[in-house]
Amino acid sequence: MKSIGPINALYPMPTTLVGAAVNGKPNFLTVAHVGILNHGTPQYLSIGLGKIHYSNNGILENKAFSICLPPEDLMVETDYCGIMTGKKTDKSVLFDIFYGETEKAPMIHQCPVNMEFKLHDVLDYQTHDIFIGELIQTYADDSVIAGGKIDIAKLRPLLFDMASKKYWALGNPVGNCWSSGKSLK
Amino acid sequence: MKSIGPINALYPMPTTLVGAAVNGKPNFLTVAHVGILNHGTPQYLSIGLGKIHYSNNGILENKAFSICLPPEDLMVETDYCGIMTGKKTDKSVLFDIFYGETEKAPMIHQCPVNMEFKLHDVLDYQTHDIFIGELIQTYADDSVIAGGKIDIAKLRPLLFDMASKKYWALGNPVGNCWSSGKSLK
Repeated sequence: MKSIGPINALYPMPTTLVGAAVNGKPNFLTVAHVGILNHGTPQYLSIGLGKIHYSNNGILENKAFSICLPPEDLMVETDYCGIMTGKKTDKSVLFDIFYGETEKAPMIHQCPVNMEFKLHDVLDYQTHDIFIGELIQTYADDSVIAGGKIDIAKLRPLLFDMASKKYWALGNPVGNCWSSGKSLK
Repeated sequence: MKSIGPINALYPMPTTLVGAAVNGKPNFLTVAHVGILNHGTPQYLSIGLGKIHYSNNGILENKAFSICLPPEDLMVETDYCGIMTGKKTDKSVLFDIFYGETEKAPMIHQCPVNMEFKLHDVLDYQTHDIFIGELIQTYADDSVIAGGKIDIAKLRPLLFDMASKKYWALGNPVGNCWSSGKSLK
């Protein structure tokens, strides 16, 4: 075990497309620096966006955003949304867009799961705005629902790892939570 | 696309063992509700811990904690640390423990990657304390390092999904970030 410096190794993380209305138009930004803050109702999640991004002002103005979950099949479009800036490129033409309750958070029909947020708080972290959203509604396609729940194997999320700079697929289930450890009791 | 209620679908997330000294003794808690806040130096990460947990007071008292990354092989021990409370069970006997610069954040030799944090801030979210840590040092075993970086395929992280209540393995790489999207330019 050796020290390698303060390297963030908390990967893989789910790759998301964050939707925001900016200057009245829908924009999408690829974000994998996300977080689950609590577990309950209301449910709060965080997204960390560098302050240079075009979406930040839209989120601040409308106090709403979305987190859309692109499947493996949408990798090229998702990566494109992380390369191009909304300042110069209309990324919304890539997708069929819909809106939910806030009417200010664009979401994507090609993403089988979309979550809509009201802006709850903003943390100022020097180079980054940390937007904390309160989850208002989740939209899911029938193709990824099984037994009334989202089936992550059907969703086929795109996982991000910073060290390899690659997207990774989800593998197989390896065991049951709150169960497999009982053998040590 | 249908509304399914405000269901958090931001999974899978990396399963971690959070280390803290509580009443002078090392304790470990299984936590997958984690987040990456920014990308830079200092690097900040968050962990969301229900207030009922035993570890919270230890983190507050010592202003330090660790995030240890258990591999698939440590699934049973990891799950056990999510079932049992440190109030009644000495979970530290499961592992070979070491300490780093803070001397207050226990870490685990059996985890090939361990990250050590100083407590930076605490957010009060009703049922949950959100501990925001500043990453001080990362410790990695040679077995998971390739080309000077952590190789996530060698680490074999344990991924958590709430809907299935299962741990999942990492799959294969499916493409390159900041690259595969260039074809759409």
